[in-house]
Amino acid sequence: MSDTPTPEWIAVDWGTTHLRAFAMRDATVLARSVSQDGMGRLDRTGFEPALMALVGPWLSAGPVPVIACGMVGSRQGWVEAPYREVPCVPLDPTLTPAPVTGDLAVHVLGGLSQRRPADVMRGEETQIAGFLALNPGWDGVLCLPGTHTKWVHLSAGEVVSFQTFMTGEIFALLSGHSVLRHSLTTDGFDAEAFDTAVSDAMGHPERFAAKLFSLRAGHLLHGTQDAAIRGALSGVLIGAELAAARHYWLGQNIAILGMGDQAQAYQRALRPQGIEAMLVDTERATLAGLTAAYRTQKERA
Amino acid sequence: MSDTPTPEWIAVDWGTTHLRAFAMRDATVLARSVSQDGMGRLDRTGFEPALMALVGPWLSAGPVPVIACGMVGSRQGWVEAPYREVPCVPLDPTLTPAPVTGDLAVHVLGGLSQRRPADVMRGEETQIAGFLALNPGWDGVLCLPGTHTKWVHLSAGEVVSFQTFMTGEIFALLSGHSVLRHSLTTDGFDAEAFDTAVSDAMGHPERFAAKLFSLRAGHLLHGTQDAAIRGALSGVLIGAELAAARHYWLGQNIAILGMGDQAQAYQRALRPQGIEAMLVDTERATLAGLTAAYRTQKERA
Repeated sequence: MSDTPTPEWIAVDWGTTHLRAFAMRDATVLARSVSQDGMGRLDRTGFEPALMALVGPWLSAGPVPVIACGMVGSRQGWVEAPYREVPCVPLDPTLTPAPVTGDLAVHVLGGLSQRRPADVMRGEETQIAGFLALNPGWDGVLCLPGTHTKWVHLSAGEVVSFQTFMTGEIFALLSGHSVLRHSLTTDGFDAEAFDTAVSDAMGHPERFAAKLFSLRAGHLLHGTQDAAIRGALSGVLIGAELAAARHYWLGQNIAILGMGDQAQAYQRALRPQGIEAMLVDTERATLAGLTAAYRTQKERA
Repeated sequence: MSDTPTPEWIAVDWGTTHLRAFAMRDATVLARSVSQDGMGRLDRTGFEPALMALVGPWLSAGPVPVIACGMVGSRQGWVEAPYREVPCVPLDPTLTPAPVTGDLAVHVLGGLSQRRPADVMRGEETQIAGFLALNPGWDGVLCLPGTHTKWVHLSAGEVVSFQTFMTGEIFALLSGHSVLRHSLTTDGFDAEAFDTAVSDAMGHPERFAAKLFSLRAGHLLHGTQDAAIRGALSGVLIGAELAAARHYWLGQNIAILGMGDQAQAYQRALRPQGIEAMLVDTERATLAGLTAAYRTQKERA
């Protein structure tokens, strides 16, 4: 790390479970570093040391601007960066400074809120801003899979509305902590079981709690394989979500933020509905959003 | 306990988390005892000592018959008591003896299975048998709320079909381990929020994962009270279950096994559908089922 040139600025993606820092020259990544010092394990005095532990080696003399997004700006975070209410542009025009004693000048981006139905996001707004920076003029619907998957309607550079689904968190709780964990002891993902479950759940989403137990019973009675159960569990939850999010994706131009298993599962589930969604690299979008915020901040200074 | 007369037999309700033993004279309870030695924390050699710890003080000389139901008869239990496939009578006609070295003669009741949709029960079949013993000739649908709620169609003394919903387990995971736990730090249950959520979920069950996150956002944005969130969480899950279990309860004679909060929530949710379900004491039903099994066993001996 001693070879890293002093960065012009530092981009920070600071979520509940992870802290990711990037030494930047304008939009170019010079170095990157990650730790598990997420917002969830820090009290207010812990943020500055956690950040310094990562970026200290990049600093030589004088303050370096830091632009951070994510849960770091929540009420339990380093400093509360207020929500802005949609419809609005995704990028926070007034960054919130964090209380720093040392050599950093940290600014935190605020999230978005929606009055009815009540909804919030933190971090995703920066990914959305980055996606728009990379795809100027794009109109359509973004799907951001995650612990709390978000569907976001974009038009004319603004977030018009959005809706969050707890699908990812429910999947993690059921596969790791429910009676189904006994039927998920080996790896694997059966795509055919996924497809069938998506289709069944889109037709009868109300049956999810029965279908879930039926997977366990199928394991006990018919020896259903773990991979089929994992595929079906994912399919039941994503299928029910698609049934509820129909007004978001039906007849729309769709992009999915993510390239991993979860993003591919959404892409696969949408295909029988005649939708070929584009997959977008999340880190690239996050950095593009933070870069846009940094440039705005720099122009203003 | 030294005053307890030697029982004629011992009734045992042995689930995943608890072991409950009853010193019996025919259908009369002489004494009761409970421990946390559920099936979930015992290996095969642990069952006999766990039982003796509870019932030892009741024994004087000679073997006493023990009739046990529940997860004690599962593959991971003391001895595997096979499932019988519905349609069939709820009471196992061929009890499975457990391997005992000491002074007890332990017999375990088997559960019920259903081929399609795949489903199983263990313990509930004894409650159902007891309910039928207490209400001879009853036809209709039993709802057995629990970690895994069961809907059971009874006709002419037989279990015709049944369906299990993971509703109780999902409620426990979401309220104790998801992001919603931060909005459920105080007690209370808002019945009006429950009613609204049941009605919404019956109309749009597919929205559950969005509705759940909306509860969290409502807490952050509008300060929704914990009691309203708990009521709505319960209502979302029970409402979706009722939407899926419609073919069980619609136009049927319904009894709910249970008298506690969860049973009352199901009773309340069914009321706007024009159904006044009877609540039945679970322990009374369990003991009536075990007593029926004991009498059959005794006649045969």
